[in-house]
Amino acid sequence: MNPIKVGLLGIGTVGGGTFNVLRRNQEEIQSRAGRGIAITMVADLDTARAREVVGPGVEVVSDARAVIANPEIEIVVELIGGYGIAKALVLEAIAAGKHVVTANKALLAVHGTEIFEAAQKKGVIVAFEAAVAGGIPIIKALREGLTANRIQWIAGIINGTTNFILSEMRDKGLDFNVVLQEAQRLGYAEADPTFDIEGVDAAHKATLMSAIAFGIPVQFDKAYIEGITKLAATDIRYAEQLGYRIKLLGITKRREGEGVELRVHPTLVPAKRLIANVEGAMNAVVVNGDAVGTTLYYGKGAGSEPTASAVIADLVDVTRLATSDAAHRVPHLAFQPGSLRDVSVLPMDRIITSYYLRLRVKDEAGVLSQVTRILADSNISINAVLQREADEVAGTDAGAGEVTPDQTDLIILTHDTTEGTMNKALVLMEALPAVLGGVVRIRKEELA
Amino acid sequence: MNPIKVGLLGIGTVGGGTFNVLRRNQEEIQSRAGRGIAITMVADLDTARAREVVGPGVEVVSDARAVIANPEIEIVVELIGGYGIAKALVLEAIAAGKHVVTANKALLAVHGTEIFEAAQKKGVIVAFEAAVAGGIPIIKALREGLTANRIQWIAGIINGTTNFILSEMRDKGLDFNVVLQEAQRLGYAEADPTFDIEGVDAAHKATLMSAIAFGIPVQFDKAYIEGITKLAATDIRYAEQLGYRIKLLGITKRREGEGVELRVHPTLVPAKRLIANVEGAMNAVVVNGDAVGTTLYYGKGAGSEPTASAVIADLVDVTRLATSDAAHRVPHLAFQPGSLRDVSVLPMDRIITSYYLRLRVKDEAGVLSQVTRILADSNISINAVLQREADEVAGTDAGAGEVTPDQTDLIILTHDTTEGTMNKALVLMEALPAVLGGVVRIRKEELA
Repeated sequence: MNPIKVGLLGIGTVGGGTFNVLRRNQEEIQSRAGRGIAITMVADLDTARAREVVGPGVEVVSDARAVIANPEIEIVVELIGGYGIAKALVLEAIAAGKHVVTANKALLAVHGTEIFEAAQKKGVIVAFEAAVAGGIPIIKALREGLTANRIQWIAGIINGTTNFILSEMRDKGLDFNVVLQEAQRLGYAEADPTFDIEGVDAAHKATLMSAIAFGIPVQFDKAYIEGITKLAATDIRYAEQLGYRIKLLGITKRREGEGVELRVHPTLVPAKRLIANVEGAMNAVVVNGDAVGTTLYYGKGAGSEPTASAVIADLVDVTRLATSDAAHRVPHLAFQPGSLRDVSVLPMDRIITSYYLRLRVKDEAGVLSQVTRILADSNISINAVLQREADEVAGTDAGAGEVTPDQTDLIILTHDTTEGTMNKALVLMEALPAVLGGVVRIRKEELA
Repeated sequence: MNPIKVGLLGIGTVGGGTFNVLRRNQEEIQSRAGRGIAITMVADLDTARAREVVGPGVEVVSDARAVIANPEIEIVVELIGGYGIAKALVLEAIAAGKHVVTANKALLAVHGTEIFEAAQKKGVIVAFEAAVAGGIPIIKALREGLTANRIQWIAGIINGTTNFILSEMRDKGLDFNVVLQEAQRLGYAEADPTFDIEGVDAAHKATLMSAIAFGIPVQFDKAYIEGITKLAATDIRYAEQLGYRIKLLGITKRREGEGVELRVHPTLVPAKRLIANVEGAMNAVVVNGDAVGTTLYYGKGAGSEPTASAVIADLVDVTRLATSDAAHRVPHLAFQPGSLRDVSVLPMDRIITSYYLRLRVKDEAGVLSQVTRILADSNISINAVLQREADEVAGTDAGAGEVTPDQTDLIILTHDTTEGTMNKALVLMEALPAVLGGVVRIRKEELA
């Protein structure tokens, strides 16, 4: 089957990322979707830059309507942004019978009702995973993953710029204006940061989540919006002393029999909650449902490839719908059955990880040097050593055997090595006269 | 349209939860799915208990095959567990042309290849969101949300029993055996906890995630499995001193050109990672993709209604597929267009939240009493008060104006009230002669 043909409107940061990821992972994406997905036409006012990004073989035009008019294009990806021309183009694409994928939260939060109705009538899909929380599949979680639940409330860090600023204000005790300038210098805040710092962007996203959670039309005009520009470093510090952190949250709550709350404002959150520990430009959304309880979704909320991840997930969804019969839409194991690969699970001695080692040793000179020599000879580098003084350890040791006064514990963290290499080194260590009993070995992962 | 008819095999903890949530939220679920979903037949060896759960109007039988043989049943939910009779019944249901929803990780991790092939041939769906991480929609995230990505690795806390035990060992400095007994007493561990504490349950789930992430067949027999039974409290303490926590992780990693790693074992994780702060019986899965970067999914990994949440999400998925044409399968705003409800967004003075208040006050007797009197008269209860000594505050205050020696800051945390009530109280406070300037008010959410 020929690839499904996609036209891109706007090839800036997210458009470029979408093009690159789709090309880089095309084989893997095709075997998930059951059909190739190809961007064959791109519209951008800056055609020279667009040609540079896409290279030969992709038609570049300056007129977005030429993409919509092309009968071969089945899906239009709108990445222009804003309420103006983007609205006209999305409605024209729908009228032309194209499916639409968009990252445009402003457009959908304000004109979603009109756009979804048009799509509904025409029998096409408007997909917008990328519009909320970038690469985090939160729209899918809300719309498909939690369908059993009466959603009670949603609270999210859904603007990376403001979370970066708040994290810096807290870490460095600096005031808003100082940190904003730093954020602009580092590229975390735009030259005109109004939509971010005044909470408008977060309110667009909260509006969309509110509609999906509660089955209500988008009502951006009724959202309460308060940004972070007036937040003082003093209050961040006092909040900390009381066990709280301050985050800009988009919040929507069901108020049984009354209505819903929809608001964006700086919010104190208990420091022990996971969401209070979401730092820098990261996003996270907490969803509370009556059956599932509290769930949380965390990841990058912006940026070229994280947002592209969501755009392409929508492209795969649309392709699966357009290509497969109902029962085969989503393959059981994610990849189409014919394309399951025969990749072997590696035997344990070939896995790579780092290690925590605890050795009970005689408290005498030279032990550390003997042990580290074995590691060096095995090409295992050491990350940290913790040597307990004998009198700190003696007699204290629940679960690790009584420690006599002439013994101590030697703890070593290593860098990555194979399990096979480590096993050989452990045999050598355990053969040392100064090493008493077996070495405790626990694997370590940085998960960065 | 008549409701889609579902037959339940086994009505224990998860089955009972599924029945109850489906009934409680039937209206909401129907307007998401586009069609009612009704459990009309239940098979359980204990028919008396089953009848008690489902009440009149639902047929209860002791023979699961009677459910499979019923031509009216379109979806069979298998909640028996294990590899034995469950395998035969799932294959028979598939052969009878039924879609199958199951929470049985053991069955799929071991016999998934055979079962998925049978379903593929017959054109039916085998859905298993509930098999991994309970209510967290992680299968959907991996299979549909992250389709753009080459998944690099997955690391998950996917067994609540062991995470509860490890959390208790760390918090209380107790040894494994002591905590296990406590966990059994509290119902967090089963009478025979072998599958949990030896890592087998986590390995079943890691096997399924590995297959979905990398497009490979299920290979449970090749997984490395090490439980937590030999973990000493000592090592948890040493790890802590080095900046790490110990978690039982299910890990699977792509090793380009070599194969994949698939392993379950106690693992040191940097204490600052979100997953290191997942406590008690909660689950969390970290997924790293080449485009999206690191994402995390958190929630309850077990229990009656959280698991039911995943079972019902699968029922809705199957119902949407069986009921809707492709373009309308997942409604744009999650609920079918005809059923959007006209619920109003509440005006800001009707929202309910708690507050952080900071008052710059004259450092003189009676101020606190005047302020708290206003709150009491407004029926706003106080959660905490932080009164700074004048000399602690004087001159220090970046961003909140210079503090003179005869002034101080009074910080108050309140319990829930309406914004309207708070606004009125603020007017009264700001009218007090001892209160200097405006009161800083930041909203607070417990998000529990």
